[in-house]
Formats: sequence, C-alpha cells, structure tokens
Amino acid sequence: MGELTEDIGFLLARVSGEVVRATNAALAPEGLRVRHYSVLLLACDSPDGISQRAVARILGLDPSQVVALVDELAQAGLVQRQPAPTDRRAKLVTATGAGCRVRERAAARAAEAEQGALRSLSGDEREVLRALLSRVAESASDAAYAFE
Amino acid sequence: MGELTEDIGFLLARVSGEVVRATNAALAPEGLRVRHYSVLLLACDSPDGISQRAVARILGLDPSQVVALVDELAQAGLVQRQPAPTDRRAKLVTATGAGCRVRERAAARAAEAEQGALRSLSGDEREVLRALLSRVAESASDAAYAFE
Repeated sequence: MGELTEDIGFLLARVSGEVVRATNAALAPEGLRVRHYSVLLLACDSPDGISQRAVARILGLDPSQVVALVDELAQAGLVQRQPAPTDRRAKLVTATGAGCRVRERAAARAAEAEQGALRSLSGDEREVLRALLSRVAESASDAAYAFE
Repeated sequence: MGELTEDIGFLLARVSGEVVRATNAALAPEGLRVRHYSVLLLACDSPDGISQRAVARILGLDPSQVVALVDELAQAGLVQRQPAPTDRRAKLVTATGAGCRVRERAAARAAEAEQGALRSLSGDEREVLRALLSRVAESASDAAYAFE
C-alpha cells in the first residue's frame, strides 16, 4: 500500500495545513484567520451581497460555521447582513468600506505567505498545481450539487 | 488579487477537505478516522516502534493530539506503548497483530476513497500532483527542522 508520506491524501493534508498555518500567521495583525478572510473576500467580490448558503457551498463549510464567521466579521464592522431585495426574510452579506480596505491589506499578506509556503515550486509548476487542484475541486462540486 | 476559487491555498484546503471527508466515510466501518489510520500505519511500518514525537513531526500534529490518538488506538487494542530499549522512560508505539490486520483492510478502503475523490485526474496527472506536493511538503519539513 506504499508509504504514508507518498500518499496524495496525506500530502494534500500536510501541504494544505502548512499554507493555512502560514496564512493565519500572516493575517494575525489584521485580526483575521483564513476562514474569516475567505468570507470577507467573497463579500467584497459580491457588490449585491452573497447569501450565507452560497458562502457555505463555495467554502465547503457547514452553514452554522458560516453564521459564526459572519457574526465575528460583523462585530468587527467588516461586513453587514441586509435583507435580500427579492425575499426580505433571506439575508445577504455585504462588505463595508472598512471591510474592503482590510481585505486589500489581508490579500497582500496572504499572497506573501502563500508564496513563501510554495517557494520550492517555479511559477510554471504552481500553475500546473493550480490547474490539477482546480479540476479535482470542480468534480467534487459537481458531485455535491448532484446530492443537493 | 484574483478570484478566491483560483487561489492555490483555497484549492488545497478544498481538495484536501474533500479527500479527508471521503476517507473518513470509507474508514467508518473500521471505527477509524483518517488521523487514527495515519498513526496506525506508521506504527505498522515501524517494527521496532515509533516515538510519539516522531509521529507528531511526520503528521504535522501537536504532540498532545498524538497522545490522544494513541490512547484511542490502544483502547481499541490496535497499538501498544512499550519502553524504548535505549531509554526506558521514552515510550515507543508498536502495532498489535490485530492493528496490522485492521490496517490492511483500512488501507484498501482509504485507497478506494482517494481514487474516487481524484477520479477527474488521469494516472499520469496524479503522479504530477504527488510529485509537486511532495516537493512542497519536503521544503516545509526542512524549514520546521531548522527551528527544532
């Protein structure tokens, strides 16, 4: 069955953990962790707002985890919940001006941390890695949609 | 700064989470989760035993997490702690016969789950992914050793 350290699942967990650790450390001065930053980024990139359900699907998190992250970001004044125009009972998450300014600084810090964690790969190799991971992620999303 | 879903760190977390979820589901009939299985595998592959410190380093876990995992595996009769021949205060983890039999079944289940999660990649593409991840993991280990 081969060595554990040759197993793709093991390597994925190891490398992913390393990038998350490095990025969390880089984001600490902004008071954010990776998951907060991901939610903030989605909110900033959705000028009309994004539902917590959509955030949960994109990030692969439970809706309850997303609610907690949005609560913390809202307390920090970085996002707010607004009623959806089409259904006032549904809430959409939008970023505040302060949130988008923090996002810009956080993005630069996160990019630097990621570059550091992936320093052993050339630019071309990073693109290959990104393309392969992207294919796997898309097929996983398709499978998840099929069960929705 | 680009789309979140194009970010390598994001993709790593997403794909790794997907493989862990699939593998945990596949290992459930054996009463194991991925982390137990990884510890069991290391114990089975170390006939002379392996220290909890070494397990922690290889898996990128805190030593306290490894102690808890070894406790659970020992309660299930799959591993045991023995005094190290060179230093009786140090304990080495070894697998029991039952542990190695469970490991064989678990390895087959885990491999099948991983194949399923990575089904969108060809065999060659999996090898490229493995090689790139391996390089990143090695450079991260080197950096960790430098601080030990």
